[in-house]
Amino acid sequence: ELQAKLDELHPADVAHLLEALPLEDRLMVWQLVKAERDGDILLEVSDAVRETLIADMDDQELLAAAREMDADALADLAAELPRDMVHELMEGLDAQQRERLRSALSYEEDQVGALMDFAMVTIREDVSLEVVLRYLRRLKELPGHTDKLFVVDYDGVLKGVLPIKRLLVSDPDKTVAQIMAIDPVLFHPDEDAYEAAQAFERYNLVSAPVVDKNGKLIGRLTIDEIVDLIREESESEVLNMAGLREEEDIFASVWKSVRNRWFWLAVNLMTAFVASRVIGLFDDTISELVALAALMPIVAGIGGNSGNQTITMIVRAMALDQLTTGKGNTLRLLRKELSVALINGLVWGGVIGVVAAVLYDSLGLGLVMVSAMTLNLLLAALMGVLIPMTLARLGRDPAMGASVMITAVTDSGGFFIFLGLASLCLM
Amino acid sequence: ELQAKLDELHPADVAHLLEALPLEDRLMVWQLVKAERDGDILLEVSDAVRETLIADMDDQELLAAAREMDADALADLAAELPRDMVHELMEGLDAQQRERLRSALSYEEDQVGALMDFAMVTIREDVSLEVVLRYLRRLKELPGHTDKLFVVDYDGVLKGVLPIKRLLVSDPDKTVAQIMAIDPVLFHPDEDAYEAAQAFERYNLVSAPVVDKNGKLIGRLTIDEIVDLIREESESEVLNMAGLREEEDIFASVWKSVRNRWFWLAVNLMTAFVASRVIGLFDDTISELVALAALMPIVAGIGGNSGNQTITMIVRAMALDQLTTGKGNTLRLLRKELSVALINGLVWGGVIGVVAAVLYDSLGLGLVMVSAMTLNLLLAALMGVLIPMTLARLGRDPAMGASVMITAVTDSGGFFIFLGLASLCLM
Ligand SMILES: [Mg+2]
Ligand SMILES: [Mg+2]
Ligand SMILES: [Mg+2]
Ligand SMILES: [Mg+2]
Ligand SMILES: [Mg+2]
Ligand SMILES: [Mg+2]
Ligand SMILES: [Mg+2]
Ligand SMILES: [Mg+2]
Ligand SMILES: [Mg+2]
Ligand SMILES: [Mg+2]
Ligand SMILES: [Mg+2]
Ligand SMILES: [Mg+2]
Ligand SMILES: [Mg+2]
Repeated sequence: ELQAKLDELHPADVAHLLEALPLEDRLMVWQLVKAERDGDILLEVSDAVRETLIADMDDQELLAAAREMDADALADLAAELPRDMVHELMEGLDAQQRERLRSALSYEEDQVGALMDFAMVTIREDVSLEVVLRYLRRLKELPGHTDKLFVVDYDGVLKGVLPIKRLLVSDPDKTVAQIMAIDPVLFHPDEDAYEAAQAFERYNLVSAPVVDKNGKLIGRLTIDEIVDLIREESESEVLNMAGLREEEDIFASVWKSVRNRWFWLAVNLMTAFVASRVIGLFDDTISELVALAALMPIVAGIGGNSGNQTITMIVRAMALDQLTTGKGNTLRLLRKELSVALINGLVWGGVIGVVAAVLYDSLGLGLVMVSAMTLNLLLAALMGVLIPMTLARLGRDPAMGASVMITAVTDSGGFFIFLGLASLCLM
Repeated sequence: ELQAKLDELHPADVAHLLEALPLEDRLMVWQLVKAERDGDILLEVSDAVRETLIADMDDQELLAAAREMDADALADLAAELPRDMVHELMEGLDAQQRERLRSALSYEEDQVGALMDFAMVTIREDVSLEVVLRYLRRLKELPGHTDKLFVVDYDGVLKGVLPIKRLLVSDPDKTVAQIMAIDPVLFHPDEDAYEAAQAFERYNLVSAPVVDKNGKLIGRLTIDEIVDLIREESESEVLNMAGLREEEDIFASVWKSVRNRWFWLAVNLMTAFVASRVIGLFDDTISELVALAALMPIVAGIGGNSGNQTITMIVRAMALDQLTTGKGNTLRLLRKELSVALINGLVWGGVIGVVAAVLYDSLGLGLVMVSAMTLNLLLAALMGVLIPMTLARLGRDPAMGASVMITAVTDSGGFFIFLGLASLCLM
């Protein structure tokens, strides 16, 4: 019964179901999936879940699933297949497919070349639309997302594209050359895939040609792959900010989850230890005035929250390429963030300063509180702008561990500023 | 010169340029943009930037820009136009457009109805493909993203869709009814737009029909709008987690930024104050053993980091609809997160416990440290699962203020656990 239901589901729906099931149930359902659908489903699930499914398959099953795939799909899977199986599969391919697979595998995950497929319909520029329509009719099927035909010369060099919507409304006696678009948006295989995604978003593309440096057509990008990329990009931004290394199967084993979270927790432990030593510097001050121990986490905490707000804004602006227009803008942005911090510091610091002054019956303590809050918020704003920019300049993801890092600064900084001011002014 | 360059840019590129410029420069460039392009560009910029541009235009300019727009585009803009201008514009529309605008405005931003457009090509099922091809040729232009034609009966009820790729490869003598797909993915205007986006992702759609409850075709969704929605969704998730209320123009005025960040900072201030009072409960303990003041932020800080990791995982899984398969899964997930927390608590708590024991030469202090870390990490895991689930059950965004809330719990909780244990065991 479950089997019958599974057979009716779209592969992407089966994939989603598998992702939402705990491991045992997942493998149980996976056994029920018809072998000929294995390949399609493996391509749809997340990397983390794919690993668990592949681990459950024997070599025969895997080979059978992989043999059905196109070169671009195989390339997506190759990283998770046993190495000698990839070789075996390669030998089973014809020369063109093998060349395509090899080329797809030669690009990094975030390059256009890793994202392209090879399902292109090419035509010549000197034929009439009538001929094109007849040619299409002879093909049994057009590849998905074919919203344009690629016009190439005899050497395979891209001359232009013929949008299907123009083909359909134009006089069939016209030639391709007369109605093709000669200056299409195109990509190179070594370009950054995220930039290609931005172009798809901006120009509302459905497909686009990929050409090599000689202008030869070698593949195409389609919006479905771009949508998946955008989704993955935004997920990894969220995960990175929270200090998670990678996408995690929510039903992953405890051990896998521990390893995924370990790194940034360890970093956090070290920065927390530093903050603790900063407090240790002021042992004597604290034992004289225990109120300081109770108030210091407020200074640090608000700094962390405010710094997180700033860093989130900046990371987002960088992801949207809004911060590339020169140093003038960085300074301006810094000035704005510092102004926001100053206002927040004076206002909220003022509020909590009054509360502290009343609660502990000490005007001095209230003043120290306001000053420390304001200074720590300024520090948070400064570092909230500088941390992601520095990471980006070092070629790192600006979101990486953002919240751990900003908290490190605002905790140690906050304790030092607050306790330092207190030692100076109140002792 | 700049003007000439601007005229060559795609409206979306001009929009991107405007977004990346500080206010004065932005308005300067905006003045240079040809009036007839104003409308297209207004539709491309973010809401925050659009506001600044509209504020700079007089009524004449605005009216001129808005008059060029289709009903669905006007609907997108309407919220930011003066109310009487919307009425004036409505009166300038023909009956059909006015009805469409009114209908588009009647849906919430996150409903399919607010996202649909009305640029549909409809055909009848009893004609031959030959006739369809001739009909298309008579249209001067097809709407963007037309990958399928909508087959309707005389009452406008959707009977099926004819994918262009089938039209192109099929025998022209066949009828539409013979080759149309009769069970297409379709949407209703009151459906959740994010669920429509998920369907577009899963089934790799380019366009899809929107029908009312009687099955009558009333509009269509296209992938370009869906891509924008996905981008906005992921952005608002990031912003919400960081405690930012809405998208912020990075060059927004200081005052606007302050208001955007105010709310969660105020919440944070209150929770920090609570944490401070928790510490206050243990005044005496701390003055007896000042080391506690230095160590307590470590317990709270690691708890916050670990809780943020958990909450990020859960929010993501909820956004991907991976947590809807029953209560069994919630329990299982909770068990997993608690196990991860237990391991991390024992390991990292152990490390820092040893350090504390050596540093302060007190085995008891080390043991209190391990226990407090472990308990606080367990608390963080529990609340990291429960907070987003509770928010979702209350109909709120599970990411809302996630980091402020989890930090509130782990700070107050961490201080209480650590200082409480210390009072009990060390005094
Ligand atoms: Mg199977
Ligand atoms: Mg992947
Ligand atoms: Mg690929
Ligand atoms: Mg777009
Ligand atoms: Mg594809
Ligand atoms: Mg980018
Ligand atoms: Mg203008
Ligand atoms: Mg909007
Ligand atoms: Mg709309
Ligand atoms: Mg997809
Ligand atoms: Mg549109
Ligand atoms: Mg903290
Ligand atoms: Mg959802």
